[in-house]
Amino acid sequence: MALLSGDEYVESLKVFSPEVYVRGERVDKVWEHPLLRQTINHLKAGYDQARSPETRAKFAVTSPLTGEDVSRLHLHIQQTQEDVLVKARLTREVSGRRICAGCMSNMLSVTWAMIFDIDQAHGTTYFPRYVEFIKHLQQSGQAIAWGMMDPKGDRSLPPSKQPRPADLRVVERRADGIVVSGVKLHTTYGPGAHQVVAVPCRALGPQDEKFAVALAVPIDTPGLKMIARPSPGPSRPVDLESPLSSRFMGVEAMTIFDRVFVPEERVFMCGEWDQAVKLPFYFACLHRQSKCACSAGHTDLILGTAALCARANGLGLKPSHIRDKITEMMMAAETAFGCALGAGAAGSEHASGVFLPDAIIANSGLDHIRSRLGIHLSHLHDIAGGLIVTMPTEADWNNPELRPYIDDALAASPEFTTEERLRILNLAQDLAASRLTGTLLGFTINAAGSPVTNKIVVNRLYDLESRVNIARQIAGV
Amino acid sequence: MALLSGDEYVESLKVFSPEVYVRGERVDKVWEHPLLRQTINHLKAGYDQARSPETRAKFAVTSPLTGEDVSRLHLHIQQTQEDVLVKARLTREVSGRRICAGCMSNMLSVTWAMIFDIDQAHGTTYFPRYVEFIKHLQQSGQAIAWGMMDPKGDRSLPPSKQPRPADLRVVERRADGIVVSGVKLHTTYGPGAHQVVAVPCRALGPQDEKFAVALAVPIDTPGLKMIARPSPGPSRPVDLESPLSSRFMGVEAMTIFDRVFVPEERVFMCGEWDQAVKLPFYFACLHRQSKCACSAGHTDLILGTAALCARANGLGLKPSHIRDKITEMMMAAETAFGCALGAGAAGSEHASGVFLPDAIIANSGLDHIRSRLGIHLSHLHDIAGGLIVTMPTEADWNNPELRPYIDDALAASPEFTTEERLRILNLAQDLAASRLTGTLLGFTINAAGSPVTNKIVVNRLYDLESRVNIARQIAGV
Amino acid sequence: MALLSGDEYVESLKVFSPEVYVRGERVDKVWEHPLLRQTINHLKAGYDQARSPETRAKFAVTSPLTGEDVSRLHLHIQQTQEDVLVKARLTREVSGRRICAGCMSNMLSVTWAMIFDIDQAHGTTYFPRYVEFIKHLQQSGQAIAWGMMDPKGDRSLPPSKQPRPADLRVVERRADGIVVSGVKLHTTYGPGAHQVVAVPCRALGPQDEKFAVALAVPIDTPGLKMIARPSPGPSRPVDLESPLSSRFMGVEAMTIFDRVFVPEERVFMCGEWDQAVKLPFYFACLHRQSKCACSAGHTDLILGTAALCARANGLGLKPSHIRDKITEMMMAAETAFGCALGAGAAGSEHASGVFLPDAIIANSGLDHIRSRLGIHLSHLHDIAGGLIVTMPTEADWNNPELRPYIDDALAASPEFTTEERLRILNLAQDLAASRLTGTLLGFTINAAGSPVTNKIVVNRLYDLESRVNIARQIAGV
Amino acid sequence: MALLSGDEYVESLKVFSPEVYVRGERVDKVWEHPLLRQTINHLKAGYDQARSPETRAKFAVTSPLTGEDVSRLHLHIQQTQEDVLVKARLTREVSGRRICAGCMSNMLSVTWAMIFDIDQAHGTTYFPRYVEFIKHLQQSGQAIAWGMMDPKGDRSLPPSKQPRPADLRVVERRADGIVVSGVKLHTTYGPGAHQVVAVPCRALGPQDEKFAVALAVPIDTPGLKMIARPSPGPSRPVDLESPLSSRFMGVEAMTIFDRVFVPEERVFMCGEWDQAVKLPFYFACLHRQSKCACSAGHTDLILGTAALCARANGLGLKPSHIRDKITEMMMAAETAFGCALGAGAAGSEHASGVFLPDAIIANSGLDHIRSRLGIHLSHLHDIAGGLIVTMPTEADWNNPELRPYIDDALAASPEFTTEERLRILNLAQDLAASRLTGTLLGFTINAAGSPVTNKIVVNRLYDLESRVNIARQIAGV
Repeated sequence: MALLSGDEYVESLKVFSPEVYVRGERVDKVWEHPLLRQTINHLKAGYDQARSPETRAKFAVTSPLTGEDVSRLHLHIQQTQEDVLVKARLTREVSGRRICAGCMSNMLSVTWAMIFDIDQAHGTTYFPRYVEFIKHLQQSGQAIAWGMMDPKGDRSLPPSKQPRPADLRVVERRADGIVVSGVKLHTTYGPGAHQVVAVPCRALGPQDEKFAVALAVPIDTPGLKMIARPSPGPSRPVDLESPLSSRFMGVEAMTIFDRVFVPEERVFMCGEWDQAVKLPFYFACLHRQSKCACSAGHTDLILGTAALCARANGLGLKPSHIRDKITEMMMAAETAFGCALGAGAAGSEHASGVFLPDAIIANSGLDHIRSRLGIHLSHLHDIAGGLIVTMPTEADWNNPELRPYIDDALAASPEFTTEERLRILNLAQDLAASRLTGTLLGFTINAAGSPVTNKIVVNRLYDLESRVNIARQIAGV
Repeated sequence: MALLSGDEYVESLKVFSPEVYVRGERVDKVWEHPLLRQTINHLKAGYDQARSPETRAKFAVTSPLTGEDVSRLHLHIQQTQEDVLVKARLTREVSGRRICAGCMSNMLSVTWAMIFDIDQAHGTTYFPRYVEFIKHLQQSGQAIAWGMMDPKGDRSLPPSKQPRPADLRVVERRADGIVVSGVKLHTTYGPGAHQVVAVPCRALGPQDEKFAVALAVPIDTPGLKMIARPSPGPSRPVDLESPLSSRFMGVEAMTIFDRVFVPEERVFMCGEWDQAVKLPFYFACLHRQSKCACSAGHTDLILGTAALCARANGLGLKPSHIRDKITEMMMAAETAFGCALGAGAAGSEHASGVFLPDAIIANSGLDHIRSRLGIHLSHLHDIAGGLIVTMPTEADWNNPELRPYIDDALAASPEFTTEERLRILNLAQDLAASRLTGTLLGFTINAAGSPVTNKIVVNRLYDLESRVNIARQIAGV
Repeated sequence: MALLSGDEYVESLKVFSPEVYVRGERVDKVWEHPLLRQTINHLKAGYDQARSPETRAKFAVTSPLTGEDVSRLHLHIQQTQEDVLVKARLTREVSGRRICAGCMSNMLSVTWAMIFDIDQAHGTTYFPRYVEFIKHLQQSGQAIAWGMMDPKGDRSLPPSKQPRPADLRVVERRADGIVVSGVKLHTTYGPGAHQVVAVPCRALGPQDEKFAVALAVPIDTPGLKMIARPSPGPSRPVDLESPLSSRFMGVEAMTIFDRVFVPEERVFMCGEWDQAVKLPFYFACLHRQSKCACSAGHTDLILGTAALCARANGLGLKPSHIRDKITEMMMAAETAFGCALGAGAAGSEHASGVFLPDAIIANSGLDHIRSRLGIHLSHLHDIAGGLIVTMPTEADWNNPELRPYIDDALAASPEFTTEERLRILNLAQDLAASRLTGTLLGFTINAAGSPVTNKIVVNRLYDLESRVNIARQIAGV
Repeated sequence: MALLSGDEYVESLKVFSPEVYVRGERVDKVWEHPLLRQTINHLKAGYDQARSPETRAKFAVTSPLTGEDVSRLHLHIQQTQEDVLVKARLTREVSGRRICAGCMSNMLSVTWAMIFDIDQAHGTTYFPRYVEFIKHLQQSGQAIAWGMMDPKGDRSLPPSKQPRPADLRVVERRADGIVVSGVKLHTTYGPGAHQVVAVPCRALGPQDEKFAVALAVPIDTPGLKMIARPSPGPSRPVDLESPLSSRFMGVEAMTIFDRVFVPEERVFMCGEWDQAVKLPFYFACLHRQSKCACSAGHTDLILGTAALCARANGLGLKPSHIRDKITEMMMAAETAFGCALGAGAAGSEHASGVFLPDAIIANSGLDHIRSRLGIHLSHLHDIAGGLIVTMPTEADWNNPELRPYIDDALAASPEFTTEERLRILNLAQDLAASRLTGTLLGFTINAAGSPVTNKIVVNRLYDLESRVNIARQIAGV
């Protein structure tokens, strides 16, 4: 059944027994480890939104592959401009509530296009296998962990020349499949997945043939290990503090393949080094368009929190500098979202059927919004005030001797109780003065390729010669 | 015949004898006055692009009103998302060649929507008159001069309380029409038009009833006068210098209505003050979306010129700071254009049939790109070098005794002759160090409403309450 | 003895028994509580730098009040331009190592000037008392906790009209002193001090007379309570992670005065409401000049860390975008520091002998650098890479089964071991992706008055009329 | 007599008969050519300010070389920190009135330091000659034209390999002097000078020995030619329009040396290629510090004009966006000026006695302010309004039939007549929408080295290693 509820999702995890480590210790049950609670909770929320009657119409779509409903954000291969525009709206909406929309369908869609290309170029038959894999995901409702980024090692050397090779590679070919070793970094939500998908992350040369590998395996395949860095939220339960990060956001894992066997039907690329460059390019079109919408959502969340702080502080939007900063954030969000839609409007269909947004607009819009986050965090500090880094803790508030002092001292707007003000300032703290702040910066600046990759894409694709020629014509040269 | 050639356009002007002044003197023949040559030339180019076989397919469209082809940019009422997206591309293309695309259809479209609303609200019958007027324009191929901005006088007082009233207003109602007096500012290309259209520029109150007036009259209607400020280009003929402004860009006129009679069939609004606010709002959606594309075109032109200068200077894009500045300009252009398309993708149809782009995205994108122009002009100076303000003049180059010295001294890249380099640097000079620079800044910063109007629109339309509520939910308040 | 060593400082704390709370619990021994260890350590480091033979020449100065050496940053009243310039250098140096230079002498200096003014205006004799207090501090080497910011409550009402008054105020006058109640916020390092000094934070009106109060009391005076928010560093001991915040940075406290008696000789202002405005103004001159240097130091630290990450990642400064970002940070640091020195060069001596830097330059420079921090943090993410939010934890590294995998996977530049790279990335994490990040933003954006206060000061003091008059003369008006 | 009045200066020009061309034609009398009137007028104003009793105390100083008063900005070799700070104030003041302070003493001072170094390094005796030359200038009050920038030709080749050599070089050595040929670009005010000084503009290699030449000759030396590009102001006389550029700002000339003989006593460098690098470096310290103050003055002028426009438009500083933009400009001016003073405060004395400001602060401050000009020009457009590019011309205003219409239509604030408003808007036009705008951009972006040169200086001089080492220590590496 394609659309699992959150609870069904948790249940489905119990069939798997992956080798996962958190803070140096082996995790027994992924679904109940305290340091994985935000991860599981985040993924559950994603399942519920596609399943629950109130939101299903928006978040689910009938898959042309299976004829069954699937979650748009997680498992649908985007095939029309409409798909792209709808997904942009959903992404903004979810990331404006819990930072990450879990848009794994982006990765599955770009991989779809690359694998199609491989078969076209090499006469191989990977694509039907991949279609079967996608059907399996859509029918089972399983979640994937995405392994794209290799460690890269010494950057002055190609993968094949590394003194200590760590990038994922084929180490043995067998009749019924391949054996791979190596590491993929930045596996967001990793331990919460059922399947691990790995693909190449950059252009490769002929000598790097064995690094040209794409595959999928169940998360508890022997030899597969994940070292998960706890999500940014607090490890201890809280009520008033960290209202967002105590509930949502996932771990980030290092995924280790130590001689992992991949059966033939889950091998989607093996040696076609010349096609490896396609994946990062399609990724640059599709996932960065999506990220424009994602960052718009973050901006919505930051500005909504700022406006609420301004009210709780008793100022509201009356001071022109507060109104201006909030308007400036609105405009940044809308510019990014405008580019998400505009890249969709200027996109085109890939031969495989995937609809690819325009890369230049997507990368330009993303470069703009990601350069603003630091400024927006500063605005949130500015509007919320110094208290977000100096206020008493939840434990102080819960001490009945201290509470009356705090209650009097931090009362501000008559429209909010002191406790409400503290709750609101704690949300600002969570966003702008916590480990979550770092994660938000990391997501924005480095995820989906760092800012310089945006510049490279635009520089390569923009038709500069035609502009130079117009200048020549006007100048009469 | 709807699509005039440029020459037919010039011919058509000879039927009219408007009262036009330039530098304090009455102009006899508009079509041959030396200080109006760039204006007429600019408008001719617009006519030719819709008529000539090579470009007609892009620039002309069959009007649903007349069944004949009309110029998309000048006279087509935009009715579909496709219209909006196509026009954005055309606007960028033309403004990337000669700064101004002459998109008078924007004004006609927003007025169409407002007049429709007036009839809906008041049971009046202006709309059929306006449709007839548009048909007349489309069938005759006539150009309009657009009068929207009133002088406003003492800003602390409403129009009706001005000690020296200058805003356009009804001064007499007659059986067969009305008599109006007042002034409209910023009439771009004014003397090159056949018809003058005037509409209100802001929200009005009940006491300002007589200022709620919309109308069209032939340009040579008695009592109508235009004082035209010469276009920014040189007044004397040149070959090498000012390659853009010596050929294109129009005058800006002050249009004076001194008891001008408007026959009933050309009165489109008369007293419906409550609907006046609609026009600036529709304008804010539609024309600012268009201006995102227009500013993208300017950016294309500036960066193309910068890249050409870099080559002529013998550096090309090798120095990373040059490449970075040019890439930065590309990204700004694409962000603005992405918002033009995105506002189209998020737009919706007005009851009158006009397709209105999304106002929030359009205003956000425009605010971004207009804030960049000063920086881009600085980049062009930086890349072109100090010579654009210190190089010898065309006359020096034409002096055979001086030319050899200049020729040696200013030779740079072996791929360009010194004369070619001078021509290229003169284009940079024209864009970044001339009166045209000022016009470009004026067009960008103040035309279509100043930057603060973008902020006001976004601030009003963005759904802040929903964002505050999400923050409340997360904070648990 | 004026210059205590760090150990002597700790010893000196044992004489006091303040009422301090951390995470809701009463602290027994301030000097050995685990959540106060960074606070005590930070203050110790400040004592040691003024005392140790290697650095004493820079950090200590002979006090003209006592003839003995005192710490420049902590206890010296700045009296010459030289004092200002030297202190700017020291501040940059220390804040470039451990974020906060502990420049309590700034607060003592501005208070010196205000108290002098009170006596001049009112014929009172507070100033000699204050001089005695400063001598006591200098002779004992005691640290102060600074209470300036009142909670302000409902911002639409003055202190005297608050429904729940919380600002510090006189509640009783006795023959031998006064009794005060109320709260001061943002008491940095509070529990590590020996004396608490409180002063007004804003202009007051005649009805707010009882809020015009300045005083000093020992930290363990009955009725004085501090609720300390733990410093941003980790609560558990670490080796590799959080290398800065696990050692330095202080708690932030809310300081409660619950009917605290202040003996007459420690009352420095009592009712002179008209002089209260002086303190924030002198503070705006002096402390913001100092903060320009402080923020320059933070920028030095961020860029030094970024450059080290670039090396450990095997890229160094070769990629032009890395070099550009680091250079951009250098220039921001130097612009701020240039303004710190420039404000000193343009400063003047107050009648009390305190040397006041120029307020316009100080506020302008500070506004600039504080607007850059968010951008610089983004640069650090960009250069350090996504690993700072996804890398394995210290506990994973210490697991001997996991270490080999991590060691191979995260090896990069051959010039650094993987452990070294992890240590370096953990410093980047500490600065840009941790609770310390939030504290850094809080220190930069809100401490010493929020950005809008910079604008207000400049707007008030800049001689706009003279500039308008020059424009008039040129325009011939 | 060292301090000439403006009239005496004009008289002094009549002794010289330089070969000057303007718009391709040979100029007969420099002092009365209509296209040189702004140049002469600008220089006259500089003479008058040092001579007139009201301003002499500020603008003149007793030269230690001659014991007579000389103009600080034009001819004084700066020798103390006080000299630097005073000159920064004067520069800001004058450039805030007429854009350019004519700070030729900067060039003379940096040359002083380089020539001193040459003698130290090579045992030559140029320095005493140069001192004599400076005395001659100070005693005669003569003006210099400064030739530093060579044309550079094909940038991929050194001077000695150019196919068409144009850089200044020695072409013959004679017993009593040298003969030089080549060109210097960007000679501001050139035709208004009495002496031409030429120096190298960049680091040279051993093969470029003959390009290592420094010299001074009278402007009418045979073989010396100047091609002067007219100053940006109008060529025809005006009353209301272009109020600044019609009176001030100078031509920019190309200075041609066609086998010019330089007698031995005016040769200051001849072949010492290893010292050529010093001049641009000293220039980078000293002239860029000065330019920080200069750009602060421009900003003062722009914001003063903006504030006056806001009043004449009837809005004043009430709208928060106007107030904010003006405050932002104030802060930019003060930040630049703060760096001018700060670079002075951090400067040091060169062995030759010249006081050199700190290069890092000067270059950082300059990079900041020059990046703001485009934004400030946009602000001026924004605040002044669209009229600055659309208003009627002076000739229209002078037409008695048109004036009443204009008078009514453009009346705004009751505190200004329409004519006053027009005068004020014409000043804004002059600054932000005219050829002067281009000159202002050119002066700001490219004069004194383009922005990338600021980055290079800072990158080279900033002590990055010490910052990296601090990061290492903290990280424990």
